[in-house]
Amino acid sequence: MNVQIICNHHGVPRTRRATRLPQPAEELRGADVTREKLLQATHELLIERAGAEPSVSQICERAGVQLAMVSYCFGGKAGLFDALIERTTTGVISELERLAETELSAEEKLRRHVAAVIHNYVRYPYANQLSERLAAGGRAAERMAELIGRPMLGFYRELLADGVADGRFREVDPTMLFFSVVGMCEFVFAARSWLEGPAGETLDDALVERFTDHTVELLLRGIAA
Amino acid sequence: MNVQIICNHHGVPRTRRATRLPQPAEELRGADVTREKLLQATHELLIERAGAEPSVSQICERAGVQLAMVSYCFGGKAGLFDALIERTTTGVISELERLAETELSAEEKLRRHVAAVIHNYVRYPYANQLSERLAAGGRAAERMAELIGRPMLGFYRELLADGVADGRFREVDPTMLFFSVVGMCEFVFAARSWLEGPAGETLDDALVERFTDHTVELLLRGIAA
Repeated sequence: MNVQIICNHHGVPRTRRATRLPQPAEELRGADVTREKLLQATHELLIERAGAEPSVSQICERAGVQLAMVSYCFGGKAGLFDALIERTTTGVISELERLAETELSAEEKLRRHVAAVIHNYVRYPYANQLSERLAAGGRAAERMAELIGRPMLGFYRELLADGVADGRFREVDPTMLFFSVVGMCEFVFAARSWLEGPAGETLDDALVERFTDHTVELLLRGIAA
Repeated sequence: MNVQIICNHHGVPRTRRATRLPQPAEELRGADVTREKLLQATHELLIERAGAEPSVSQICERAGVQLAMVSYCFGGKAGLFDALIERTTTGVISELERLAETELSAEEKLRRHVAAVIHNYVRYPYANQLSERLAAGGRAAERMAELIGRPMLGFYRELLADGVADGRFREVDPTMLFFSVVGMCEFVFAARSWLEGPAGETLDDALVERFTDHTVELLLRGIAA
């Protein structure tokens, strides 16, 4: 399940320009600079190649580093992909925590959270496919579930309690709502052949915006007090 | 992404008993009887083996037919799996069409439709994984999208128009709502490691019921006039 090539407003498929990965807080030195170049190169190539796995030499060429550096920095290609998933995940969770800490109303937090979840599927179109490939190898699925699922569930519990306290939300099961939101946001990207086949839509920026508005409205009305 | 072993009310994992596949309308004769036995055997084995592909000899043994019959009836194992997906899909779409033709209110139709979508993930836990495996081979994803997506989109368009006409629903984009519903229903099965890990839930009959109630309420409030 994956979405890869995003189309522009005119429905013309194009390779989406990769954004910059979230950066670590500390200043980079020595091998960290090389690690960073390799992560950014892999991120870019996965997007440009529509999710198809780039080779180590393609990654090193793009990063402008010696071929041996993938082994040196990550112990191999699998370690590099693992580190990329970890980086994107950590970035997403930091953003969630920053949102949780703001003074915004529960309603506004939910609105921004939904937009962020959808935006993450646009930003990291390869993330699902890559984590599934990694997960096939062992305990990665469990680790991902912990890394993303646990803080997100905490966010939903707090958000819903705040919304009930300020009289805007009805009592809703946070776990069930978490699955509803992520499921809705993911599916429009996962089921792209349904969207572009029978529905006759194009997965472009305009559709992402329309889908975000639809999802926010459905949810806010759905959980309104 | 797949859900395979369903747990019982007490949270004890058990192999879910396979139900009978939807039957063709005509009386079966000759080779059709054998085809039917092979389809039912594959359906049962996929559920019992938690989605892992059974071998041709395992399938024939369960069906009680000669080994050569898979080739004779389906041209091979891939053809057999393809026919199984086609059978489950056709069954699901017939049920949708029967629901559309009833005299029920739009609200009640949506309620039953959501329960049916969730029930289909319980009944055919292997369907997603199997279609993805088949889709990897070629145009199967497109065919599936047409086979399921087109009638479902038609159902949503009619349902929402009826609900607006009888004053119960607000104006909602049928395509967007279709993706919301299927996405919500699928994700709880697809992200089972999230459900059973950080959320500490068990994917059993009680959870399916709770999730169905939650989803129906969220949707009906979400699109209420």
